[in-house]
Amino acid sequence: MSIALVIPDRKLDQLQQKLQQQLPDVTIEIWPQITDPTAVRMAVLWRQPPGCLAEMSNLQALQSFGAGVDNVLVDTTLPDLPLARIVDPMLTHSMLQYLQGVVQHYQLRLDEFGAQQRKQIWKARSPRQLKHICVLGLGELGQAAASHFAGLGFTVSGWSASPKTLAGVHCFAGDAAFSAAVNEADLVICLLPLTAQTENLLDQQRLTLLKPGVILVNVARGAIVDDLALLQNLDSGHIAAACLDVFRTEPLPTEHPFWQHPAILLTPHISAVTNADTAVAQIAENYRRSLAGLPLLNLVCQQRGY
Amino acid sequence: MSIALVIPDRKLDQLQQKLQQQLPDVTIEIWPQITDPTAVRMAVLWRQPPGCLAEMSNLQALQSFGAGVDNVLVDTTLPDLPLARIVDPMLTHSMLQYLQGVVQHYQLRLDEFGAQQRKQIWKARSPRQLKHICVLGLGELGQAAASHFAGLGFTVSGWSASPKTLAGVHCFAGDAAFSAAVNEADLVICLLPLTAQTENLLDQQRLTLLKPGVILVNVARGAIVDDLALLQNLDSGHIAAACLDVFRTEPLPTEHPFWQHPAILLTPHISAVTNADTAVAQIAENYRRSLAGLPLLNLVCQQRGY
Ligand SMILES: NC(=O)c1ccc[n+]([C@@H]2O[C@H](COP(=O)([O-])OP(=O)(O)OC[C@H]3O[C@@H](n4cnc5c(N)ncnc54)[C@H](OP(=O)(O)O)[C@@H]3O)[C@@H](O)[C@H]2O)c1
Ligand SMILES: NC(=O)c1ccc[n+]([C@@H]2O[C@H](COP(=O)([O-])OP(=O)(O)OC[C@H]3O[C@@H](n4cnc5c(N)ncnc54)[C@H](OP(=O)(O)O)[C@@H]3O)[C@@H](O)[C@H]2O)c1
Repeated sequence: MSIALVIPDRKLDQLQQKLQQQLPDVTIEIWPQITDPTAVRMAVLWRQPPGCLAEMSNLQALQSFGAGVDNVLVDTTLPDLPLARIVDPMLTHSMLQYLQGVVQHYQLRLDEFGAQQRKQIWKARSPRQLKHICVLGLGELGQAAASHFAGLGFTVSGWSASPKTLAGVHCFAGDAAFSAAVNEADLVICLLPLTAQTENLLDQQRLTLLKPGVILVNVARGAIVDDLALLQNLDSGHIAAACLDVFRTEPLPTEHPFWQHPAILLTPHISAVTNADTAVAQIAENYRRSLAGLPLLNLVCQQRGY
Repeated sequence: MSIALVIPDRKLDQLQQKLQQQLPDVTIEIWPQITDPTAVRMAVLWRQPPGCLAEMSNLQALQSFGAGVDNVLVDTTLPDLPLARIVDPMLTHSMLQYLQGVVQHYQLRLDEFGAQQRKQIWKARSPRQLKHICVLGLGELGQAAASHFAGLGFTVSGWSASPKTLAGVHCFAGDAAFSAAVNEADLVICLLPLTAQTENLLDQQRLTLLKPGVILVNVARGAIVDDLALLQNLDSGHIAAACLDVFRTEPLPTEHPFWQHPAILLTPHISAVTNADTAVAQIAENYRRSLAGLPLLNLVCQQRGY
């Protein structure tokens, strides 16, 4: 019985070694070097090439190597098996650090002072009054972010698909409540998963519902935001600034207008990275659970897309 | 009996009004419109022109309008009277917000990502490991900063003129201990007052004692740092980056090389501003104390310079 690591374009020796230490009796192979596809019980996936699991006829479980599963689910040949994702407290911690740093960046107007510096303009300004933060998506990361900022004294609203109750957070659910969730927020953080429902969710129509002068932070997936609509809203000033860690195509193509836009702060998808040790422990645990017939930890719903 | 507000180049109507509300029976006048200089008991000072107090022969107390007194003490004609400064919890709070934002800016490498963005470089990097922070100056602001970062889990060292004990902070005192205070710090914050002793204190010799790759944050006074030595250390990479809120000449002259230096983050002296209401309350209280023969609050030592 074996595990197949199907994560193209990435050095996997360390991951293989660490997983081997946790599961000494299991064969762990790196796709496409799979000795016996029928022996594979679990596949660890990230941007896997469609069709690559076809010969693994005894697969029992699928494990995403990341916190998201959109890169796994784009593969329409994916078998209808239980799919788990990684939930990592260290990833959540680094996401909160990133978000707090970004909020303080805008509070201190480091964006505007940076622009002034390049033009040699000396103009004192008091800090931006960011009082209300809205978090789109109240899952693992969204809940942590909403609670974190509520704990710091911000007014926080949150938006999810199904109704939620979260201490200190004004929770809104469903499409009809989107406007109420966002319309008073000084800063909106996107922590939605990318699904058929959320692709281009932040389009011209929904961006118009944001408060004039809002700041938008996207740390989820690039394709949730309509690039052109964002640019238009930044140029009109309806959105004052955007911090983007994720993009429709990554690395962001050289010719993309986001690179040089004065109101965009761009980071190369670094807000939160899966920790190898946590991932290895969860993959090993899910492998054992799958063999024992127990439900996987951190299951996602293939139909729903997250 | 009257109070003279001697703060050139600033609109003082509001300050005058607010002070009048606190001291309804006192005449409050704005220099140079002083009806009877011999009636002035207290002068509120900030960059006052030398000699302007000459005719105020019955002065009893001097009050700086800011947290620092260097702008008051440059006036060598200043009479040898008790001099107080403002101590403002809101000023301290805004300084801590600024410092924390700046520390997170460097932790998240927003400086490097900003530079990469301008060159259209996509290169992921994990956060900077800033573990040890050194605070130069352990007065009102320095103690607050040192305790704040110690509370967040940083290793913190502090440096002052006289020995100090501060929970969670490794305290060093005096010139001989400067090297030990700074040499392991990943980030050094200057919160010293500007005096004859601290002018150009951070010169080539002392900057060499900082750890290679250090980040320097100056929120005290520009003249404490030797501009040329700082530029040389930034160019050699010995200092990785500098965040400067204060400058030898303010506004920073257009031709100054700090403006366009890629390793400098420059803000226009905004890290902490005196709150008018706190200032007014302290000025009023010190006026009452002075008339009653009580010692002023927040006295400074003219000889020592702070
Ligand atoms: N930038 C990075 O480095 C990085 C790192 C990790 C993750 N991420 C991204 O962050 C995303 C969120 O992560 P997570 O772990 O918090 O996800 P999660 O636990 O799956 O939570 C998703 C949340 O979004 C809500 N949601 C889904 N579809 C919705 C819709 N159509 N309308 C309204 N709400 C909807 C869900 O609502 P319900 O709770 O009602 O179902 C849930 O609250 C991931 O999918 C990933 O793409 C980025
Ligand atoms: N950027 C801004 O917006 C802003 C706002 C407010 C203030 N500031 C600046 O910040 C400075 C510090 O403020 P503060 O209220 O904390 O001052 P403070 O209460 O007077 O404290 C000064 C500290 O510096 C130490 N010190 C003085 N001379 C020294 C020397 N030669 N060697 C070593 N240590 C020395 C003192 O040591 P001892 O305790 O042993 O005497 C004391 O700990 C002010 O003077 C002002 O210039 C800037």
